[in-house]
Amino acid sequence: MILTPSDTHRYCVIMCGGIGSRFWPYSRTDKPKQFLDFFGTGRSLLQMCYDRILPVVRPENILVVTNRRYVDMVREQLPEIAEERILLEPDRRNTAPCIAWAAYHIAALDPEASMIVTPSDHLITRDNVFEQCVRRGFDFVERHDALLTLGINPTRPETGYGYIQIGKEVEPGLMKVKTFTEKPDKELAQVFIDTGEFFWNAGIFLWSVKSIRQAIRRYAPDLASVFDAGIDDFGTPRERAFIDANFGGCPSISIDFAVMEKADNVYVECVNFGWSDLGTWGSLYENSRKDSNDNAYGHANVIAYNSTGNIFLAPEGKLVVVNGMHDCIVADAGDVLLICPKSDEQHIKVMLTDVQLRNEDRYL
Amino acid sequence: MILTPSDTHRYCVIMCGGIGSRFWPYSRTDKPKQFLDFFGTGRSLLQMCYDRILPVVRPENILVVTNRRYVDMVREQLPEIAEERILLEPDRRNTAPCIAWAAYHIAALDPEASMIVTPSDHLITRDNVFEQCVRRGFDFVERHDALLTLGINPTRPETGYGYIQIGKEVEPGLMKVKTFTEKPDKELAQVFIDTGEFFWNAGIFLWSVKSIRQAIRRYAPDLASVFDAGIDDFGTPRERAFIDANFGGCPSISIDFAVMEKADNVYVECVNFGWSDLGTWGSLYENSRKDSNDNAYGHANVIAYNSTGNIFLAPEGKLVVVNGMHDCIVADAGDVLLICPKSDEQHIKVMLTDVQLRNEDRYL
Repeated sequence: MILTPSDTHRYCVIMCGGIGSRFWPYSRTDKPKQFLDFFGTGRSLLQMCYDRILPVVRPENILVVTNRRYVDMVREQLPEIAEERILLEPDRRNTAPCIAWAAYHIAALDPEASMIVTPSDHLITRDNVFEQCVRRGFDFVERHDALLTLGINPTRPETGYGYIQIGKEVEPGLMKVKTFTEKPDKELAQVFIDTGEFFWNAGIFLWSVKSIRQAIRRYAPDLASVFDAGIDDFGTPRERAFIDANFGGCPSISIDFAVMEKADNVYVECVNFGWSDLGTWGSLYENSRKDSNDNAYGHANVIAYNSTGNIFLAPEGKLVVVNGMHDCIVADAGDVLLICPKSDEQHIKVMLTDVQLRNEDRYL
Repeated sequence: MILTPSDTHRYCVIMCGGIGSRFWPYSRTDKPKQFLDFFGTGRSLLQMCYDRILPVVRPENILVVTNRRYVDMVREQLPEIAEERILLEPDRRNTAPCIAWAAYHIAALDPEASMIVTPSDHLITRDNVFEQCVRRGFDFVERHDALLTLGINPTRPETGYGYIQIGKEVEPGLMKVKTFTEKPDKELAQVFIDTGEFFWNAGIFLWSVKSIRQAIRRYAPDLASVFDAGIDDFGTPRERAFIDANFGGCPSISIDFAVMEKADNVYVECVNFGWSDLGTWGSLYENSRKDSNDNAYGHANVIAYNSTGNIFLAPEGKLVVVNGMHDCIVADAGDVLLICPKSDEQHIKVMLTDVQLRNEDRYL
């Protein structure tokens, strides 16, 4: 990999604290989605995320923000990440506090830094295109006081994503953001697609630490006040105690809602690198290789008769034999077996509640 | 339990060498059906069979015939059975050689003996009625040179069973057998039921050792010649070596075909004690307790939504969550998961062949 001198100031923050409950029972509170090798490639989504960013950001500049309960899995899956580059949130507080902490932390290490923030549990199929896009994004936010988000060229009227309406093009492929719209209904999503003005919000952001701190102070002063109180502690041995004492006082709010939807220097880089947030079993199915009967197997050992359109997951070494199944999720997670029509996967929320009501939290 | 003096001559032979492949993947070549606790009662079918016969036959007069590979399971499940009461078949040779050996063995111990022969993998729900029927059967075969089979009052035109046509009643509930018919088609089975003259062949037999030896010598001379060659070895330390050397030379044939269908002293005791051979998943389903949605759970921990008519089996501690499943077998056997419509269970034979073709015998 060829890194330019400016790369020393480029950082990456991998957000790795999610619980991924929509992929239950494969994703569990003690091993969420980002730690799973969904596709049987030998690398988890988190590891794939790390691999993807390596050509652009020096390994010592890659940080992981996660929850205390997941730290052992992060260490195990990413032994390359030094201990001091793992930021441990004492509480779950959505993305804005997570990003704010990372920004203050990096600013203390390098006031000239720029950073990319990325979820750890998404899928990107075209790593090369991703790399080019991220380089262009860094170049842009290093030259402008800009908050940049990556917008994905939409391929279907998906109702589970947020949409970004683009405005004026300021550089090739880089536009001013006009509006954000969270999860439209099907009709509106179709209108969005038809206009050609809307892109999916991938939740991947780039900015300089200067720009994001300034924006947080302006648009989320309650959040900024928490971190400004410890401004001298970041990058010192006192940082951890400060975070443990104060992070819980942060409002639980997304960076989109806290900053992006309010700021006037928000830009979108329109990209097309084969992205899915893998937010649903359906999206996992769409992104999986399928056989001639449209069954997706992951690495499950399956014999399927008269069965079409299913997605199978099973522990290694397990044989799954099915007959007459259509368009179902069959997810065997060892101690839990889920069988559910793909079209009914929103029902998983109800299932989780029912499992809790039965006092069987060990299955969650 | 009250045993009469004549009980000292009463023996029971439990046939326990079957492989039960129709219940795959729950039943496996290394742990067939008879060793499984299908109903979650804490007792396997074999143990239930033993419990059922105890009020009628002294424990020291109960023998188990099984295959060498299952001897450890027999010892574990029936520690009450003395080592010398477990007859180990060196080869699988259907029921006639098994029964012939047991008859020669018992005759050497007690020439005045009578015996009941029973499969170990059937279900009988009314133990008390069974007990009375067996007593009456013993009384009958001790007074007559008779080969007695138990005939079950049929409740549906089952095509998977053999049927016995009854002739003249010789004592109350005891008839001469007119014909045997193996597995009729649906129409014929219905005709059988309508006439009232046909009973299901339960494969449970009673006779004196004198009568059965005589019948084997007359109707299955090739079989008799094998055992007569070792007549002085039975009941001695030489028996085992004799069997190991000669059992493989027996023809593989059922007792029905070898003797019962040929002999002229065959009688049937018509009984009604809630019997099933549990030969199919469907029959297990029929015999299982079901909830208001007609789902049968065994001891599986299941949460079912919008699901009816299913039968579930799963390892202890596993949670099964299903949505929108109807009339299916869901059998999780740990390393194999089978999902199959109940109406399609004959397809399991094809599955077993396919698993073999994949060289995955460990799943059989």
